[in-house]
Amino acid sequence: MTTESTFIALMRNMATDPSARGLLDDTAVFTLGSETLILTHDMMAEDVHWLPTADAADVAWKLMSVNLSDLAAKGARPMGVVLGFMLGDDQWDRRFAEGLRAALAHYDVPLLGGDTVSNRGDKRALGMTAIGAASHTPVPARSGAQPGDVVYVTGTLGDALAGFEMAEVGLEGASALMSAYHRPIARLAEGQALAPLVSAMMDVSDGLLLDAERLASASKVAITIDLASIPLSAAYKQQRSDSLDSRMQAASWGDDYQLLFTAPAEVKLPIPATAVGQVNTGSGLSLTDAAAPVPLPATLGYQHR
Amino acid sequence: MTTESTFIALMRNMATDPSARGLLDDTAVFTLGSETLILTHDMMAEDVHWLPTADAADVAWKLMSVNLSDLAAKGARPMGVVLGFMLGDDQWDRRFAEGLRAALAHYDVPLLGGDTVSNRGDKRALGMTAIGAASHTPVPARSGAQPGDVVYVTGTLGDALAGFEMAEVGLEGASALMSAYHRPIARLAEGQALAPLVSAMMDVSDGLLLDAERLASASKVAITIDLASIPLSAAYKQQRSDSLDSRMQAASWGDDYQLLFTAPAEVKLPIPATAVGQVNTGSGLSLTDAAAPVPLPATLGYQHR
Repeated sequence: MTTESTFIALMRNMATDPSARGLLDDTAVFTLGSETLILTHDMMAEDVHWLPTADAADVAWKLMSVNLSDLAAKGARPMGVVLGFMLGDDQWDRRFAEGLRAALAHYDVPLLGGDTVSNRGDKRALGMTAIGAASHTPVPARSGAQPGDVVYVTGTLGDALAGFEMAEVGLEGASALMSAYHRPIARLAEGQALAPLVSAMMDVSDGLLLDAERLASASKVAITIDLASIPLSAAYKQQRSDSLDSRMQAASWGDDYQLLFTAPAEVKLPIPATAVGQVNTGSGLSLTDAAAPVPLPATLGYQHR
Repeated sequence: MTTESTFIALMRNMATDPSARGLLDDTAVFTLGSETLILTHDMMAEDVHWLPTADAADVAWKLMSVNLSDLAAKGARPMGVVLGFMLGDDQWDRRFAEGLRAALAHYDVPLLGGDTVSNRGDKRALGMTAIGAASHTPVPARSGAQPGDVVYVTGTLGDALAGFEMAEVGLEGASALMSAYHRPIARLAEGQALAPLVSAMMDVSDGLLLDAERLASASKVAITIDLASIPLSAAYKQQRSDSLDSRMQAASWGDDYQLLFTAPAEVKLPIPATAVGQVNTGSGLSLTDAAAPVPLPATLGYQHR
């Protein structure tokens, strides 16, 4: 099978328009008249992005949040979404529609259109495109981090991992961890508040370490992440412990949809966020546990989905 | 399985924003500043929209043309496309990339971004979103046809049907009919030329008769199509005959991607098109063969894909 990186390399060859940002960002950014538009597309597939036992309403919610999270990382105001839907059994489809309705209402974002295809008994694939308007230009990119900047992350990490583990063993019911996994929230307000101040920004969809490495690579800088600084929720610590190993896992698991960003140390942040690292000259990612160096784990995050 | 119409009805309930046009159009139309934007999304699935033996380069071309055809029907200038791609075997993916490159070059439209998902051995599903800027406002809709208007179609119909039949029996090689099926062309220049003059417009993606019925329904008018007037190419007639039955098939087969539109009889058209019918008061679709009434066929077009 073609790897994602091989195919993206093929696509990058032809995505030469500046709006495509060399496919290094999760979104396209282009201007029309006096406005700057942000366009993003995410797919989700059964068995890849959701467990076969998942509630279809949660799948719809997540599809929406994943897309809006890309807009959040650009400081964009969402203008609407379009849905690509593969039809399946009636009950699943109705639950999906219920979840979509809830997510549209939560974010107050209009469904603008879409397309359906029939399903010949295969696993489902769904797609969504979100369009937004920039709240600030220049629109934040992955590529602006400067040596000396501080690396920040919003919220807490690892809650989706803990929630996934609970879902995997069949636990049900409401808890903050389950909810973090099933119904992640795109940080739209935070993204808009941060957009004028950050030097680089992206969402943490594939794991803090992997995404920080991507940010470092796009910015042509080195980033050091301090695992001791990783923000963990009380619920996460209770469920999974506060060990270095547990912190490493929280930092290399995706699906948290927090915002990862860099800013000069003197910038006063308009929203709560945790300083988790430092931008330096050089390249690549390195880790510390407080002052002590820590080797990189074998996988930094969720790479092949 | 949920039918397409059931699911679309569910979606229509929540697509209450005026930009969504009640999901009656194939596109969303919304304004940003002084600009009017058109957004459309189409999916294609293996075994539904393409034969397993299809050349992946043709699949890419068609995915692009299907989306741009929706923009053409709005008189839009394409600004870019984003791709949702399910990875598969390496050779297929490379051929797909070649076809996409050719289509991007043909239409001079930038690839702005997208997303890939891995494939667990299932049939593929692909999605594309196209965004365009209106060349004329108000943007043509399906809903503006007026009694007394003439019904027109660009180009010829049935060529894709004839090409499909050739592909199905394993014929290969270049011919206008094969090309109409494998590499349909979105009528972008025609759509832009027509947009200021038409009362209603849409593309013929599911068959002239089915699409004309949808246009009649959206416009709350009756439409009569004269089968004797259906424009057929010389190649089509030679391959499939010029009988009434053959005309009926050409008019109820999708994939031609011509433009179907209505305009007052006194309007002088800026491009070649064939008058194929008449708009009347009332509702529904009726057929004639020159003057003689013809009963509607059991299926008007390609409904469940």
